[in-house]
Order: sequence, then C-alpha cells, then structure tokens
Amino acid sequence: MSVLIVGSIAIDNIKTQLEEHRELLGGSASYASVGASFFSPVNLVGIVGSDFPKEHIELFKSRGVDLAGLQIVDGKTFRWSGEYDWDMNVRKTLSVELNVFETFSPKLPDAYKGTPIVLLGNISPSLQKHVLDQADSARFVVADTMDLWITTTRPELLGLLKGIDLLVLNDSEARQLTEETSLIKAAHNILHLGPKYVAIKKGEHGCLLLSKDRFFSCGAFPLEDIHDPTGAGDTFAGGFAGYLASLDKKAFDFDDLKKAVVYGSLLASFCVESFSLERLNQLTKKELEDRYELFKLMSHFEVIG
Amino acid sequence: MSVLIVGSIAIDNIKTQLEEHRELLGGSASYASVGASFFSPVNLVGIVGSDFPKEHIELFKSRGVDLAGLQIVDGKTFRWSGEYDWDMNVRKTLSVELNVFETFSPKLPDAYKGTPIVLLGNISPSLQKHVLDQADSARFVVADTMDLWITTTRPELLGLLKGIDLLVLNDSEARQLTEETSLIKAAHNILHLGPKYVAIKKGEHGCLLLSKDRFFSCGAFPLEDIHDPTGAGDTFAGGFAGYLASLDKKAFDFDDLKKAVVYGSLLASFCVESFSLERLNQLTKKELEDRYELFKLMSHFEVIG
Repeated sequence: MSVLIVGSIAIDNIKTQLEEHRELLGGSASYASVGASFFSPVNLVGIVGSDFPKEHIELFKSRGVDLAGLQIVDGKTFRWSGEYDWDMNVRKTLSVELNVFETFSPKLPDAYKGTPIVLLGNISPSLQKHVLDQADSARFVVADTMDLWITTTRPELLGLLKGIDLLVLNDSEARQLTEETSLIKAAHNILHLGPKYVAIKKGEHGCLLLSKDRFFSCGAFPLEDIHDPTGAGDTFAGGFAGYLASLDKKAFDFDDLKKAVVYGSLLASFCVESFSLERLNQLTKKELEDRYELFKLMSHFEVIG
Repeated sequence: MSVLIVGSIAIDNIKTQLEEHRELLGGSASYASVGASFFSPVNLVGIVGSDFPKEHIELFKSRGVDLAGLQIVDGKTFRWSGEYDWDMNVRKTLSVELNVFETFSPKLPDAYKGTPIVLLGNISPSLQKHVLDQADSARFVVADTMDLWITTTRPELLGLLKGIDLLVLNDSEARQLTEETSLIKAAHNILHLGPKYVAIKKGEHGCLLLSKDRFFSCGAFPLEDIHDPTGAGDTFAGGFAGYLASLDKKAFDFDDLKKAVVYGSLLASFCVESFSLERLNQLTKKELEDRYELFKLMSHFEVIG
C-alpha cells in the first residue's frame, strides 16, 4: 500500500547556537516522504520552483517517492530561515518567502486518487481539505497542523478535523486548540472535534496517542545531542503513515497505531541527529530495526505472554 | 525485607486554585512510609511534637509502619503551608515552621540498623548522611533531594552521592545540579558523581531511570484531574523502595528497578487524586495491581516472548 503525502517543499537556512547551514532541503512533505519511504511507496503532492536543485529530485527518486504529483513551475521555491535557541524547543522564524507556494493548488494525478493512506502534512487546513476531497478511497487520514493555523484559520481547521482519522500536533498546540492545561483533557476535547485518534508530540518527553477509550505513552529515544530539530514532527508523521501502509490492512487497530507511533518517533530521533535529511538519507532499515529493539527494552517493564 | 525511611513528618496547610485544606498529615517520611507499606514493613525514623494528632500515629500503625524510631518530643510538629498555581507544577511556599524539626538528630534504634533497604527521604543531606552512617547493612540506598539542598548544601549533597545507589530528583533539579540542559547528559553527569542509578521525575511526563549503560522511560499514568500534587515524589520513592524490599533479594538488576519505578509512579498517581494521604489510605492492593495491568497496556507496544 502507498501513502499520499501533501505538504510544503522548501529550501531552508538553519541556524543553531553551534552551527549554521544554508540551502538545505526542507519542508513538511520532504521530511514526511523520506520518513514514510522506509516502509512504503510514497505519492508526493507538492510544488517547487524552477530553481529547485536536481539533486533533491534525485533524492526523492532514490527513496521510491513518486513525483507525478510534484508541480515544477516558473519561479522560486518556498524558502524558510530559522534559528534555534540553546533550548531547541524554542525557535524563531527569521524569514519566510512563499514564492511559488503562494499559488499552490494541489491537484491529484488520477493514479493518486485511490491511495489508501493519506498524510496531510503541515500546510494550511484549506489546502489539506482540498487534497482530502480528491482522495476518494482513503482508509486512514492523518493530518498534521501547527500554532499558525490554530490562530489564523481555526474554522477551516475545525472543518478539516471532522474528516480525518488522526490529528498530530504538539503539546503546546493541543493546549492552544482546546484551552485546556491538562494534556489528557486537551486530547479528549480534540477527539470530540472529530478525529478518532490524536497524537500529542512532547519533544524530549515523547508522545501520547489517545482514542476515546485507549491510551499509549511513547517515550523519546534518549539522545545526548540534537543537531537540528527541524522536520522531526514531519518525519514522525511520515514514518507513522508509512508503517500503517506497510501493514496492508483494510482497517487498523490500536495496537497497529502504537507501533506506528514508535516507528515514527524513532525515525524522528534519527532525523534530529543531523541537519536537513542528511541522517535519514544515510539510515538503513537495519539501523532502524536495531533502535526499535533497543527502544523496546527501554520502554517495556515486563515480559507479557 | 523491611525499608528504613527517614524524612520529615509535617502538618500541612495546602491551597490549590480550587480548594484549601488545613491540618493535613504531610512530610516526606509520611508519604514515603505509606507508599512503601503497600509492599513491605517500614521502619520509620522521624520527629514530631507533642501536638501530633494521635490519629496520624494510628494511621502509621495500621499501615504496618514501625514507630520505634519516631521521636515524640515536647514542642510543636514541623509545619508547612503551600499554594499551587493553576499549573500544578508551580507551587509557592507560604510558610515554614521547623519547630521540633530544628533540633532533629536522627538516631536509629538498634533493631533498625540492619534494615536492608534504606530510603533517605527529602531532608538535608547532612541528616541523610547521619542516618546512612548508622545503617550498616544497607543493600540498596535511595536518596531523594530538592532544589533547596542543591543551592544551600551542595558540598554535603555531593558527599552523600558517593554513598548511595539511586538518586531521585526532578527534571529541573537534575538540570540545576549539573548545569546541563539535556536531561540525558544531566543524568550521565549525576552518575559520575557517585550513584549507580538516577531517577529523574518529570511530573506529567513520567520518569526516566538510568544507569551507566541502561535506560528506562516510564510514562505517567494519565489523569484528567490532579487534586493535590503534594507528596507525589515522596510516595514514588517510598513505593520504589518498598517494592525492592518485597523482592527479598541480595542484589537487584535493572529489570527489578524498572518495575520498582512503575510501582512508585502508580502509587504517586493515586496520591495526587486527593489531598494528603487520603487516597493512599483508602487504596487496596487490588486497585494498585489493576492499574499496573492497565499501565502495561499503555506502555508496551509489542508482545515480547
């Protein structure tokens, strides 16, 4: 089974307190596609300008990402510059140039319309909705969002939530969306807004997955050093969706989703070990499975039969 | 096997944004003793004044807590008043009256000196050291600490760390002690200071347990409402120590410690469901085991053989 992924494709300039890297491949769809590609074929929907480096196209191809849905248009690719604090949870956007992204109207190639798993990466809820409306055979729809959309396009976001299976967002965004301090209350409030599941990312504290009657707490894989947290959330969502697709099932139970969360988290833990997609691009399936086994030892506290 | 517990015994006045309760049984040794009592006999070392309510003495007795090490002296019992913010991680001490605690010099009854598990509850490191020096057959020593001791008695705390097996502290205290932002780095630095293990409590985000080469991430049991977080950390430490004692072993491996962390966390999750020791005092072993089974489902993501 394939995953349909829509989101931004960007050229990033990223500063941390220790390093600065320029002209990096970025954007939610880029990270999500490479994350998902560890498990399944990806149908990518996005837009880039004529300046988009050919090496990035080659990277996508080498990961088994189908590019029939990638629009390459005259103009410049979306650009983002950001700077991280010593506390890497704190980041400042230095500049955004929408460029060709400003006129992006995602259109699904016919071959994409039956894709069973759909990941609506972090872009505006109205673009997400526009893609969802064209994906008529979706079995499981994941949507990612962020503070910007909660503030500026709340009605559109609330509309989207009625049509998706899982909402992915971080802890502060869950609190912002629901105006609840308790994450458990916030999660339950989100489930009342439509999605069957919600995944709340907590950075170094891991991730929670909730349905109306189930709960899963996933720790974060322990890392001494984080080089660049950009794209961790997108990689998580991509890995999650890719893993589900690889199960090749008509419907998914909570235990499937738990493992999808674990694989998403572990891919994110590799992602932040270097800038851009550098580490993921080097990563082997064997390394991922080794970290999975290690993580099982770190999370389970008893042998269950 | 029994647990030796030393710490404060207090009368607390506690305000949250919703409720206020006065004249409550509190103090690190009180919570820790009741926590440990779910698994093993407790030898309590502490001091109270002549005003200490008889009902609290009865409570300790009903939990199988030995009181040969409890000094009851002329004067008033230690008193603490505190107020919690809407965000229950934030609390303000409104008043402290040391009273009889000011002259506390813990002296172990001879019968206590061979207790195999020792929990040095949250009191000054010099008092903790004083108790440790008298406990000559300790197989496993747990020490709890707090920001106050890190700031005001750092040399004494560093001295104590060389003689203990496990240090328990919260995330901000781990960062404060080591001046490291990364909790993983902070934990490894603490292990260099002496203890074989460190447990970092993260409130609603659970708890990490680390040795030089092992790692365990324990989630927090999901609670919609927390009524009073007072004593959660002490209950955690008590439950941890009590569980170890119940294993009746000469030495403990990392898997034993993982389960001790889980039981400690679950007891703490009951503790915060009401004020003072109210909930723990009503709690049955069956309820604890039921929550343990539920928590296993919430934490494990795969059946391991």
